[in-house]
Amino acid sequence: MTQNNLAAKQQIQNRNAIADLQNLLADDLAAVNAEIITRMQSPVALIPQLAAHLIAAGGKRLRPLLTLASAQLCNYRGNAHIPLAASVEFIHTATLLHDDVVDDSKLRRGQDTANAVWGNKSSVLVGDFLFSRAFQLMVDTKSIDVLRILADASSTIAEGEVHQLLTANNLATTKSDYNRVIYAKTASLFAAACEIGAVISHAGETKQAALREYGMNLGLAFQISDDAFDYYGLPGKDAGDDFRDGKVTLPLILAYERGHDSERAFWKKCIEQQNIGDGDFERAIDLLHRHNALGDALIIAKQHAATAIDHLSVFADGAVKQLLADTADYAANR
Amino acid sequence: MTQNNLAAKQQIQNRNAIADLQNLLADDLAAVNAEIITRMQSPVALIPQLAAHLIAAGGKRLRPLLTLASAQLCNYRGNAHIPLAASVEFIHTATLLHDDVVDDSKLRRGQDTANAVWGNKSSVLVGDFLFSRAFQLMVDTKSIDVLRILADASSTIAEGEVHQLLTANNLATTKSDYNRVIYAKTASLFAAACEIGAVISHAGETKQAALREYGMNLGLAFQISDDAFDYYGLPGKDAGDDFRDGKVTLPLILAYERGHDSERAFWKKCIEQQNIGDGDFERAIDLLHRHNALGDALIIAKQHAATAIDHLSVFADGAVKQLLADTADYAANR
Repeated sequence: MTQNNLAAKQQIQNRNAIADLQNLLADDLAAVNAEIITRMQSPVALIPQLAAHLIAAGGKRLRPLLTLASAQLCNYRGNAHIPLAASVEFIHTATLLHDDVVDDSKLRRGQDTANAVWGNKSSVLVGDFLFSRAFQLMVDTKSIDVLRILADASSTIAEGEVHQLLTANNLATTKSDYNRVIYAKTASLFAAACEIGAVISHAGETKQAALREYGMNLGLAFQISDDAFDYYGLPGKDAGDDFRDGKVTLPLILAYERGHDSERAFWKKCIEQQNIGDGDFERAIDLLHRHNALGDALIIAKQHAATAIDHLSVFADGAVKQLLADTADYAANR
Repeated sequence: MTQNNLAAKQQIQNRNAIADLQNLLADDLAAVNAEIITRMQSPVALIPQLAAHLIAAGGKRLRPLLTLASAQLCNYRGNAHIPLAASVEFIHTATLLHDDVVDDSKLRRGQDTANAVWGNKSSVLVGDFLFSRAFQLMVDTKSIDVLRILADASSTIAEGEVHQLLTANNLATTKSDYNRVIYAKTASLFAAACEIGAVISHAGETKQAALREYGMNLGLAFQISDDAFDYYGLPGKDAGDDFRDGKVTLPLILAYERGHDSERAFWKKCIEQQNIGDGDFERAIDLLHRHNALGDALIIAKQHAATAIDHLSVFADGAVKQLLADTADYAANR
C-alpha cells in the first residue's frame, strides 16, 4: 500500500472513531452545543460574532466529548457534565484564539482565523472573555475539585505556550523540553477533561486517576502524531507548516540529533535562520526518512495510545469504553 | 489658587490617603507581596521575569489593599485575605498586560511596557498564565462565593474591554456606553475586591452589599477623574494621551454633545479621522473648558465618591473606615 493510500484508509478509520463517539453521545452533545451558544452571548455583539466564527463553525468537539464519555463511563446521573463540557470547550477556544494571534495564523480549519477577520485586539479580548466564561460555568457546578483541576490545567497550558514560544527556531530544544511542552499545551486539558467526568460522578480515586492517565496519554498521542503528520499533510492542514514556521517538534529533534554536521548546518539554516529556499522542504522530508524520525515519532505516539487504552482496564466493558479505546487508536493512526 | 498649585496640593493629599492605607495594613500588604512573588514563579523563566517587570515594579496595589481593608473592616480573623488579595492583583496585572498589547502602549508607570521589551506574544501568554494563577489562588480558599464573584468580575472586565474597543474613534459613543464601559473595565474589579473581604468574613448581606457598592462607586470615581485628568496630565501620564489615541471618554462626550457644528467637525477630524495637527490639543482643551466638560465630569466623579462614602455608614467608625473614605475623596480630587 502506498503512503497516500495508507493515509486515506487511516483517515476514514479515524473519522469513524470520533463520529461514533459523537453519535453515541448525540443528546448530550446537542445539549453542550446549546449551552455553548447560550453562554457565549453578550450585549457586546462582537463577542458572540467572533466566538461563533470559531466555536459554532465546528471542530470535532473532542475535549467536551471526553468529559461526556468519562461521565457516562462512571455512570454519572446528573446535569453538571453539560456545562463542564462547555467550559472545557471554552478554555480550548480561548487558547486557539490566543494561539492564532501569537502564531500570526491566517487559516484554521480551512477558513480565515478570527484575528485575520477582526484583528488581534478583538481576538485577545474575546479569548479573555471565553476564558472567564469557562470559570463562570464551572462555578455554577459548585465543585471546588473541578475548579482546581481546570484552573491547574489552564495555568499549565499557559506555561506550556510560553515554553513553546522559547523553543521556536531553537535547535537546542531537547526531547525533554518537547515532552514538557506537549504535556502542558495539549495533554493537560485532555487529562482534565476526562478526570472531571470521574469527579462529578464520585467514581473514586482509582477511576479518577485512570481517566486522568487515559486523557493525558491520549493527548500526547494526538500531539505527537499531529506533529509527525505535519510533514505529510492532513485534511485542512498543509504539509510543512511547522517546518516553515520554525517549530521544533519531535521528528525534527530526532533527525537533528541523528544528523551529520552538514545536515545540522542545513537544519540551522532553515529553522534558526529561517532561510528556506526551493527544495528545502523536500530535503527535510528526505532527512526525516533517512533517520526514521517520522516513523520513530509515530511509534512513540502509538505507545502513548496503548498506555491510554491500558488505563481503561479498570472500567467494565461497554460501548463507551470501546469508543474511547478506538479514539486512542485513531490518535496515533491517522 | 492656580490650576497647577491646586493640582500639586491635591496630589500630596492623595498620596497620603493611599500611603496611610498602605501603612495601616503594612503587615498584610507585605504578606500579599510575598505571596505574589511566590505564586508568579514558574520553571519557564520568562514568566517570572516578565511578570516581575510589571508586578514587582510596584504600582499602588490599590485593589489588593481594598480586599485587605474590607476584610479588616469586617473583623476578619483568618488567612484567606492574603491569597485573595494576591489573586485580585494577578487579575489586574493580566488585564494590564493584555491592555498594553491591545493599545500598543510603549510606556506604563514611567517605564517600558512588557510588550515593548518582550513582544506582544509573551505578554498575551504571560497574561493568560497570571489569570489562570489567579483562579488557582482562589481555589485554594475553597470559597465558591469568592470564585463566583471574581469569575463574574473577570468576565465583565473582558466584555468591557471589547466594548471599549468599539467606542474608540467613535463619536456615536453615548454617556450610557461610557458608563457601561467604565463599570465593566474598572469598577467591577474594585467592587469584587471589596465584596470578597466581606464574604470571607461572613459579614452578612448588608455589609457585603455595602462594600460592593463602595468599591463600585470608588472605581467609577477613579476612572472618571482619570479620564478628566488625562487632559491636564498626571504624574507618569502625559496630558492628551486619550485625545491622541482617539479614546472617547466622558469629557469629550460632553463637549461633543454641547458643541456647535463647526466644533463637531473639529472633533470628527481629530477623533474619528485621527487627523491631529499642531494646536489641535490646545483647541480641544479650550472647547472642553468652554462647555465646562472637565468640570462637569469631575462633579460626577465627586458624586460617585460621596456615594461610596455613604455606603460605609453601616460600619462602626475606626481607622480603616476613615482611610477608605479618604481614598474615595482622593479618587475624585487628584
